[in-house]
Amino acid sequence: MTQLTRQDCERLDQDDALAAVRQEFDLPENTIYLNGNSLGAMPKKALDQARQTVINEWGQDLIKSWNLHDWFSLPQRLGDQLAPLIGADAGEVVVTDSTGINLFKVLSAALMSQQQAHPQRKKIVMEGSNFPTDNYTAQGLIKLLGDQHEIVFAEGEEIVEVIDDSVAVVCLTQVHYKTGRILDMQAITEKTHACGALSIWDLCHSAGAMPVELNACRVDFAVGCTYKYLNGGPGSPAFIFTAKRHQGKALQPLTGWWGHAAPFAFERDYTPADNISQMLSGTQPIVSLAMTAVGLDISVRADMQLVRQKSQQLGDLFIRLLAERCGDCQFRVVSPLDAAQRGSQVAIAHEHGYAIMQAMIARGVIGDFRAPDILRVGFSALYVSYTDVYDAVDILRDIMDNDIWQQPEYNRRHAVT
Amino acid sequence: MTQLTRQDCERLDQDDALAAVRQEFDLPENTIYLNGNSLGAMPKKALDQARQTVINEWGQDLIKSWNLHDWFSLPQRLGDQLAPLIGADAGEVVVTDSTGINLFKVLSAALMSQQQAHPQRKKIVMEGSNFPTDNYTAQGLIKLLGDQHEIVFAEGEEIVEVIDDSVAVVCLTQVHYKTGRILDMQAITEKTHACGALSIWDLCHSAGAMPVELNACRVDFAVGCTYKYLNGGPGSPAFIFTAKRHQGKALQPLTGWWGHAAPFAFERDYTPADNISQMLSGTQPIVSLAMTAVGLDISVRADMQLVRQKSQQLGDLFIRLLAERCGDCQFRVVSPLDAAQRGSQVAIAHEHGYAIMQAMIARGVIGDFRAPDILRVGFSALYVSYTDVYDAVDILRDIMDNDIWQQPEYNRRHAVT
Repeated sequence: MTQLTRQDCERLDQDDALAAVRQEFDLPENTIYLNGNSLGAMPKKALDQARQTVINEWGQDLIKSWNLHDWFSLPQRLGDQLAPLIGADAGEVVVTDSTGINLFKVLSAALMSQQQAHPQRKKIVMEGSNFPTDNYTAQGLIKLLGDQHEIVFAEGEEIVEVIDDSVAVVCLTQVHYKTGRILDMQAITEKTHACGALSIWDLCHSAGAMPVELNACRVDFAVGCTYKYLNGGPGSPAFIFTAKRHQGKALQPLTGWWGHAAPFAFERDYTPADNISQMLSGTQPIVSLAMTAVGLDISVRADMQLVRQKSQQLGDLFIRLLAERCGDCQFRVVSPLDAAQRGSQVAIAHEHGYAIMQAMIARGVIGDFRAPDILRVGFSALYVSYTDVYDAVDILRDIMDNDIWQQPEYNRRHAVT
Repeated sequence: MTQLTRQDCERLDQDDALAAVRQEFDLPENTIYLNGNSLGAMPKKALDQARQTVINEWGQDLIKSWNLHDWFSLPQRLGDQLAPLIGADAGEVVVTDSTGINLFKVLSAALMSQQQAHPQRKKIVMEGSNFPTDNYTAQGLIKLLGDQHEIVFAEGEEIVEVIDDSVAVVCLTQVHYKTGRILDMQAITEKTHACGALSIWDLCHSAGAMPVELNACRVDFAVGCTYKYLNGGPGSPAFIFTAKRHQGKALQPLTGWWGHAAPFAFERDYTPADNISQMLSGTQPIVSLAMTAVGLDISVRADMQLVRQKSQQLGDLFIRLLAERCGDCQFRVVSPLDAAQRGSQVAIAHEHGYAIMQAMIARGVIGDFRAPDILRVGFSALYVSYTDVYDAVDILRDIMDNDIWQQPEYNRRHAVT
């Protein structure tokens, strides 16, 4: 097999059905942005949306905007916009709060439901190596509930084995934040239900990166963020999915006025809305919330099958170029080599991973580092090109050839990595 | 006593030490905005801040902004900026999440502390007529904890009477959202502590409107919003105060990675930060969060004693003009007549309150209506002038004279009022 050339990659870009989507984003010059798995790029229309919300709505219409611009229903309207991307129906998703807060809501709702159905069940199955905020959330809830529950930690393929009829809830992230490994949502959810447990999926690394089929898999609850592959802006509000069959029954405990059956009746006592609105709590940050519409709009117009296909090809291309051009550099691919089992990112390990990533960032190739030795590069198919991948590996080769990563400035640790 | 004239009000404006602050806000033309108690006006620099965060930070520096622009410490930096406005010290306040979510955190923290100190105490004192989301939050938490706790509802002056040594927590809003009545923070907190209970204050209608002395009153916890008198923008993130003596001890249960002692160690298990950061949960909406700095900056530069004094005078002026010019119209002042007992708003009742307020809004005088019959007008001293108040009453007189409020279009109810 002959080695791939830059011309080969240019040809792939010419044939790329998604190539035009890149024009909807404003990417900085001299930058190859391979970190959309952490913070998505800025759509060109983002500032227009901010200007609209700040100047025309807040500034001009002030309090009247709650009616005139229907700020109050933004969580539901954005949820309906997002729903098809994750295999949900209208009325099953709201955009609100943060992923962790939302996980607290659905985990509480699931545990309280199980308290009725199977009061003796106290186990929650989670993955120990998951992005830790999910585990922290469960630990905080368990402590609040008086330490009656227990987390059963399992990893990867072990997970399906530990699900049995002593389990109340199975709470997993579909795509692993570090390795990009995909869990089998369908098989795990089937086993979960066969054992009488409820399923919660965290879609932070899958929503917008690949087709997700929540209802086809009969998932009970899901959460996820909008600032990675959905390009909603830094820390943009997260989402909650609750399957129709649980609405009005499985209730969440962060009971603010936005989740009340009649929020503007200002009644003293809480009456839950009998629909997805019950998953809301308090007043939302309208500027950040409204901006998520811009990124969502781009994703909704893209064909998620094509997005998935291209991201797999970008990942395969990176892995192949790494082998061809940096085969002597002691990199080890940590992500699954089979694209079908891999999300939209590739993790590689190297003893000097931190310094190498700093050197890459200094050269304009933006990925990130996760301790102890992992370099992550994400391939957001909406704006990353095949030549981006070629050029990134080219720069990596140069860094390794010239020992640039040994320079002291690349070995100083930042507070945030 | 002769009736006040517009010239009198013009003279008051000329002598107003805060008059220049109005220039820092962009107010719509032909509008008298008397609803800063619900949504503060837009500072002129708001869009600049949005542009900076969206274009220069998100767009250009992308993921590097977490370090370069220190997004991660925004909740603490904004909290330190806000602290002097509420009588708190640096390191005691963070800006994050919504008021309701934050109330859930501190109420949980307080109840869990009391579970150690006084395990038999299960009562929470609240005000039944409070803005209901506070009550809903307590009700949601109580249900989650298995209905072991009980809310003792009291009103106004009764409150101090129901605090005894069976009470775990006293959770009140300092300024009543509807009537503007101020509760005596010092006396109630003293009684609370004398009885061995913990105090939580909601400052939604006081922060930025008057000097608040949390530490001088030995308050334990507080929450509040930044989008009313602090002009942070629609739904801008709220704040939490935790007195130094409780930090590292009274822990909140929405345990996300931002509250971890070492967030970037990505450890599997939660270890709480031993400072105010433990009150954080997950990733924040950075655009909305960063924008709060603009409004805070204006308030921090203003003298809160002057702000308070002017807002009292504006309220007194409104009440006097209403008596002088609309004395025959059956309005009833619901707020305390004594300015010392009244926050920065005046509530008046009228049988046809809804239609009258709609007619006022149609004429550019923006206040709001609260069922069953209350018209609220807020006097944000940073940008409301004495002539604004004169002109507002002038328009109200005209509406009443011409029965404009009887027209059918003012009697149609909006979903959001």
